[in-house]
Amino acid sequence: MNAPAELRAVNQLAAQFARVRGHTVALAAPLSAEDACVQSMPDASPAKWHLAHTTWFFETFILEQFEAGFQSHHPAFRVLFNSYYNGVGEKHARAQRGMLTRPALAEVLAYRRAIDARVSALLAAGPPDALITLVGLGLEHEQQHQELLLTDLKHLLSMNPLNPVYATDGPLPPVNRGPLTWQRVDPGIVEIGFAGNGFCFDNELPRHRQFVEGFALASTLVSNAEYLAFIDAGGYSDAAWWLSEGWDWVSSNALTQPLYWCRHDGNWHEFTMRGLQPLDLQRPAIHLSFFEAEAYARWAGARLPTEAEWECAAQSAGIDDLFGACWQWTTSSYAPYPGYATADGALGEYNGKFMVNQYVLRGASCITAEGHARASYRNFFPATARWQFSGIRLARS
Amino acid sequence: MNAPAELRAVNQLAAQFARVRGHTVALAAPLSAEDACVQSMPDASPAKWHLAHTTWFFETFILEQFEAGFQSHHPAFRVLFNSYYNGVGEKHARAQRGMLTRPALAEVLAYRRAIDARVSALLAAGPPDALITLVGLGLEHEQQHQELLLTDLKHLLSMNPLNPVYATDGPLPPVNRGPLTWQRVDPGIVEIGFAGNGFCFDNELPRHRQFVEGFALASTLVSNAEYLAFIDAGGYSDAAWWLSEGWDWVSSNALTQPLYWCRHDGNWHEFTMRGLQPLDLQRPAIHLSFFEAEAYARWAGARLPTEAEWECAAQSAGIDDLFGACWQWTTSSYAPYPGYATADGALGEYNGKFMVNQYVLRGASCITAEGHARASYRNFFPATARWQFSGIRLARS
Amino acid sequence: MNAPAELRAVNQLAAQFARVRGHTVALAAPLSAEDACVQSMPDASPAKWHLAHTTWFFETFILEQFEAGFQSHHPAFRVLFNSYYNGVGEKHARAQRGMLTRPALAEVLAYRRAIDARVSALLAAGPPDALITLVGLGLEHEQQHQELLLTDLKHLLSMNPLNPVYATDGPLPPVNRGPLTWQRVDPGIVEIGFAGNGFCFDNELPRHRQFVEGFALASTLVSNAEYLAFIDAGGYSDAAWWLSEGWDWVSSNALTQPLYWCRHDGNWHEFTMRGLQPLDLQRPAIHLSFFEAEAYARWAGARLPTEAEWECAAQSAGIDDLFGACWQWTTSSYAPYPGYATADGALGEYNGKFMVNQYVLRGASCITAEGHARASYRNFFPATARWQFSGIRLARS
Amino acid sequence: MNAPAELRAVNQLAAQFARVRGHTVALAAPLSAEDACVQSMPDASPAKWHLAHTTWFFETFILEQFEAGFQSHHPAFRVLFNSYYNGVGEKHARAQRGMLTRPALAEVLAYRRAIDARVSALLAAGPPDALITLVGLGLEHEQQHQELLLTDLKHLLSMNPLNPVYATDGPLPPVNRGPLTWQRVDPGIVEIGFAGNGFCFDNELPRHRQFVEGFALASTLVSNAEYLAFIDAGGYSDAAWWLSEGWDWVSSNALTQPLYWCRHDGNWHEFTMRGLQPLDLQRPAIHLSFFEAEAYARWAGARLPTEAEWECAAQSAGIDDLFGACWQWTTSSYAPYPGYATADGALGEYNGKFMVNQYVLRGASCITAEGHARASYRNFFPATARWQFSGIRLARS
Repeated sequence: MNAPAELRAVNQLAAQFARVRGHTVALAAPLSAEDACVQSMPDASPAKWHLAHTTWFFETFILEQFEAGFQSHHPAFRVLFNSYYNGVGEKHARAQRGMLTRPALAEVLAYRRAIDARVSALLAAGPPDALITLVGLGLEHEQQHQELLLTDLKHLLSMNPLNPVYATDGPLPPVNRGPLTWQRVDPGIVEIGFAGNGFCFDNELPRHRQFVEGFALASTLVSNAEYLAFIDAGGYSDAAWWLSEGWDWVSSNALTQPLYWCRHDGNWHEFTMRGLQPLDLQRPAIHLSFFEAEAYARWAGARLPTEAEWECAAQSAGIDDLFGACWQWTTSSYAPYPGYATADGALGEYNGKFMVNQYVLRGASCITAEGHARASYRNFFPATARWQFSGIRLARS
Repeated sequence: MNAPAELRAVNQLAAQFARVRGHTVALAAPLSAEDACVQSMPDASPAKWHLAHTTWFFETFILEQFEAGFQSHHPAFRVLFNSYYNGVGEKHARAQRGMLTRPALAEVLAYRRAIDARVSALLAAGPPDALITLVGLGLEHEQQHQELLLTDLKHLLSMNPLNPVYATDGPLPPVNRGPLTWQRVDPGIVEIGFAGNGFCFDNELPRHRQFVEGFALASTLVSNAEYLAFIDAGGYSDAAWWLSEGWDWVSSNALTQPLYWCRHDGNWHEFTMRGLQPLDLQRPAIHLSFFEAEAYARWAGARLPTEAEWECAAQSAGIDDLFGACWQWTTSSYAPYPGYATADGALGEYNGKFMVNQYVLRGASCITAEGHARASYRNFFPATARWQFSGIRLARS
Repeated sequence: MNAPAELRAVNQLAAQFARVRGHTVALAAPLSAEDACVQSMPDASPAKWHLAHTTWFFETFILEQFEAGFQSHHPAFRVLFNSYYNGVGEKHARAQRGMLTRPALAEVLAYRRAIDARVSALLAAGPPDALITLVGLGLEHEQQHQELLLTDLKHLLSMNPLNPVYATDGPLPPVNRGPLTWQRVDPGIVEIGFAGNGFCFDNELPRHRQFVEGFALASTLVSNAEYLAFIDAGGYSDAAWWLSEGWDWVSSNALTQPLYWCRHDGNWHEFTMRGLQPLDLQRPAIHLSFFEAEAYARWAGARLPTEAEWECAAQSAGIDDLFGACWQWTTSSYAPYPGYATADGALGEYNGKFMVNQYVLRGASCITAEGHARASYRNFFPATARWQFSGIRLARS
Repeated sequence: MNAPAELRAVNQLAAQFARVRGHTVALAAPLSAEDACVQSMPDASPAKWHLAHTTWFFETFILEQFEAGFQSHHPAFRVLFNSYYNGVGEKHARAQRGMLTRPALAEVLAYRRAIDARVSALLAAGPPDALITLVGLGLEHEQQHQELLLTDLKHLLSMNPLNPVYATDGPLPPVNRGPLTWQRVDPGIVEIGFAGNGFCFDNELPRHRQFVEGFALASTLVSNAEYLAFIDAGGYSDAAWWLSEGWDWVSSNALTQPLYWCRHDGNWHEFTMRGLQPLDLQRPAIHLSFFEAEAYARWAGARLPTEAEWECAAQSAGIDDLFGACWQWTTSSYAPYPGYATADGALGEYNGKFMVNQYVLRGASCITAEGHARASYRNFFPATARWQFSGIRLARS
């Protein structure tokens, strides 16, 4: 039997479970069944799939292990909603997630309710520590998918010439506070990686030492006005600013502006969660690829920070908008920390197997779950990815 | 003012308009909004798009010309639901039709009702002959899309591992009546192309003479049992039976069977409008490409007919299942008849511009609108197309 | 023992063998080993490969069958220089023909000499009729490859910014004689296909009847001046002139002119066998695809002829440049004649398996072997092919 | 006027210039003009192109700046043989390098002799320091291309079913000396990057501090025998060993073994510079991609080193085959060192613009120029590259 403190902790977890799970449903509430079903590109998943996969996570990694006499909610779902866990078995092809007009959105919501009830029952029954840990992981996982759901949805809506509105008060990155100052950090050994008692993902561990040369980090993010100056100066048509592979990418895709920018009646606009809006010059430039961020930095006479620089500067004062506006590209390729170890079993596939050809982003965006805003959090995407809420914070040596 | 006979004809047209338009909606009735929205491949269109495009046809080619003070139902629809008429202006990219989660299915159905009411009002007001002709064309067009709607939907459902059922009594090609006999036709000059007073498409005209050498046409379609014998004899792994380009296609796609066939628990099954079913050996083999049909014919010691042979034999007795089972590939490349002329304006794009690299199919399938079953009708698809209800009728010299 | 007449015929064949085989070598004489080795695109073969493959043809289809104690010249050559005969066995991948820096050009020329000697020995020894027939076929085959060798070489040289000259007196299509008149042909049954005692390919047979409606054929080819008018009128940027698939092809490849045309110092030039030359307005426009030919014809208020029309008009007087300038596109898809039969064995793959998705060209170009200029000859290429010496002769109904 | 010591240094440079330039020609001596001309894939360049481009480097960066009354050897060469220097101007497309049958190999060799004479004349005339520095850079550049010339040539020869031999005594990585021991390094701050007075590339600078956790590095390279055990254990068919992107790469390319391995008459063989040879189990496994190296390491219960670990261990004793066998993959993405600065002008493109999506290899291979074997040298290739002489040295924490 659990001691009172443990009981209280379990009760808190149960409440948090209800809150987080309910929040995902609330995020999808403005969507029609059609909005929730369509896949706009192989890299993006339908909202319905996010709703189902996060539920599959609890069913597969918790109920299957801890529920007496476990029976699957629907045998096909084990394959349909497996994302990438080879250890679990077969999976439905990623690029085919949008083909799943069945199960209907209503059935997926029913799936959520059924699994929620079963997990809640386990939590109410004096759960073992291993289950508590896994529910915690499941909720962190769910919160990551809350952000992806909105990110992927924005891409889908942007493909529609009608410029649909997600919500008239949909999330936007806040206006930059400026002006830019350079926050200097002296050379020395710093500690990088998660410290403390709370939750972190395995890729934030182990905390370890790095030697960082002296550098300065910008106090603010690059704004739309500043990025527009780069465009107006011919930034997209001068190879001098670009990495070689970036220049090939810009040229072969004939790119001339950020993903969601367009000219409309002669004026710059940006597609947002609130539909098409006149470009707000004071807000940070977002939906930029690593290549665009890197080219802008060179043009601006600066560079992108490494992730160690970013994390170490984030421990000091004077840096604005670290969290809550947009993710910030670093020049660090996503790689394991010294001594990094993956979990046993299928959950070991959570992070480690993606550590190649991706670049780390730090911070948190205006659609990131609040609890994920911490200095050690490592987000990562390929150098060409533009559909994330990704922007630029400059550094210099 | 119209004479009584003309009035009767217009009334009949109005009734037919209501019937045909209503039938399209009825075909889509078993579909959820999700089913109706998703595009399973660039060649296939969502059911919602078919519902909207056929309505766009009436709005664009009839209301815009004949309605006093015409106002578009929704200005964006002119682009969104234009299929391929460059003469009308911009069009939404074909491969992006599935991105249109908005307008919702309900809005598209409302669009249909609104345009139906406006067309009906014109028909009730003593319409000029030109309008009557165009409404007739619009209904024929609508009926072509009824078949495409079901064809495309079948492809979408087939992509779902849950094997969804369109309807438990969904359409199937009827069982072959057999046995095969060879219907002989003597050499001579024949007349090919549409004759009579009813409607036909421009590609069926002008009726003209051709000299046809003596030949024989099979009295029945190739059955699943017969096609299975080709598979069992190693047909898909012997280059000798295939056209060179067909062999490349088979090899690079690693094809071993018709599109909707699969082995399930050791037995052959076929995905149908009634879901996954054990393969019915007595029914005609369908969803075959031209390449498969042509290879089978060679293996069977026969060949495919030309479209002139097919049409000329169809005028004789003794040929079964000409219409109502499946389309039948011919060796005739889709080309203009001697003296073929296209209509003026955008409607001239209806047929003529597709007359290259496609092969003619004759007959009509189990999902073809009844009025379209006539000897002169020319259907056409590329040699690799498999998602149509397309099968084989053999010929020999 | 052969009668004197037969002996004379065999002696003539032996002389022709020496002449034709020698001519191929002479065509390659201006080439360096490097020129002869490189493959400029998958559709084109290196000159060295043509030299070897035509030799392989004699070795495989004649020596192997008729030479007592046959031993292959080099065991690997059977695979390396097989073009597309599945019946012979394995073949080196077409797109990899340019990888064969070994055997060296000198070794291939030695291979030619060795096989020539062995074939000549057989011809001198009182050959059976079957051998005589096959040597005849081998020489016709060789002559087809003489044209391909030059055609493919022209493409290779055109890829070099140095604009190399094949020969300062290299072949050009002669200047048009004009002016254009329309040669009228009345409707009626005509005979199409090869007649006579000489050689023809299997695809020219059987001679058969066709009913041809009345039409008129242009007395001259479309000139560079005329084609330039189409360009200047915006022909490449107006979808109205193009088949739908042709328009996609033009747009996705951003085409604005024939394959070998370019502007140089403000003036139109054309890459020729004599290097880069100012565009000669009086010569026929060549290196056009079927799509370009078809679009030009529509713009000019005419159309392309069918192959039956072309062949039937070629039997009349008044048509200029039928042979010796350029191949002329027809609207006829390449298909078997009624009653067409292929040879037994691997040689049955010579023509028949290519009868899909290609369009027939009639006539002969300035680089076609003389004996191939006959009214029934059927050349064929896909609708996008541009590197052949292909031009336009207009027709109208 | 130069002091005696300076004169001696210049004389030494002139002698080295002659030696290095002559060595490149010697490496190409076994090649026919055909061997030297063909490009086997876009990533590989023809030997003739390497011969010309290294010469272009001296002409463009030295003669153009330092030669009075400079005239280009051939105006077109400036474009044809520019590799990737946008600052110099236009360049011939990389994938089209194999189209250049002209200039002939003989002309390129003449180009080399002409430029050599002109550079030698400058060196004999009391050259300024800047020229001396650039000649030094040009020779280092030439030596890099000596390795690439052989690497690219090996790929070309491997595409030929005749398995050509470059030289019967062609270079092979030496037999492993083994057995493997683990060389331990304690944690601490180390200095990384080039130190000393000799030449280094800009990417080896600046020398800087890094904190390295304790680790151990294998004393020997992974052998063919060891890698074969991985294959025999099903390594290529178990996703568990692979990075996610690596697994996609293995699966979509159906890979089952290293690039140049094949089974021949039931036994493993390897294509080498000496032609096809039985697999030598004692030699190091080479021509592995980063993905294969990384998967092998995981299967073997180890990991790849970082480049800092490699460089720091290379300063200790006990590590065998650091140089002269094969390049060794590290987990370090190619990135600028802290404070890295590029040169001004076009030469600034030498290294910096490639610092993305590539992984660093350390060491030197059996075909690397001797002077390039140093602990700070950074080679780099994409994670899928296999045609380099790249192998595996394991590490563990």
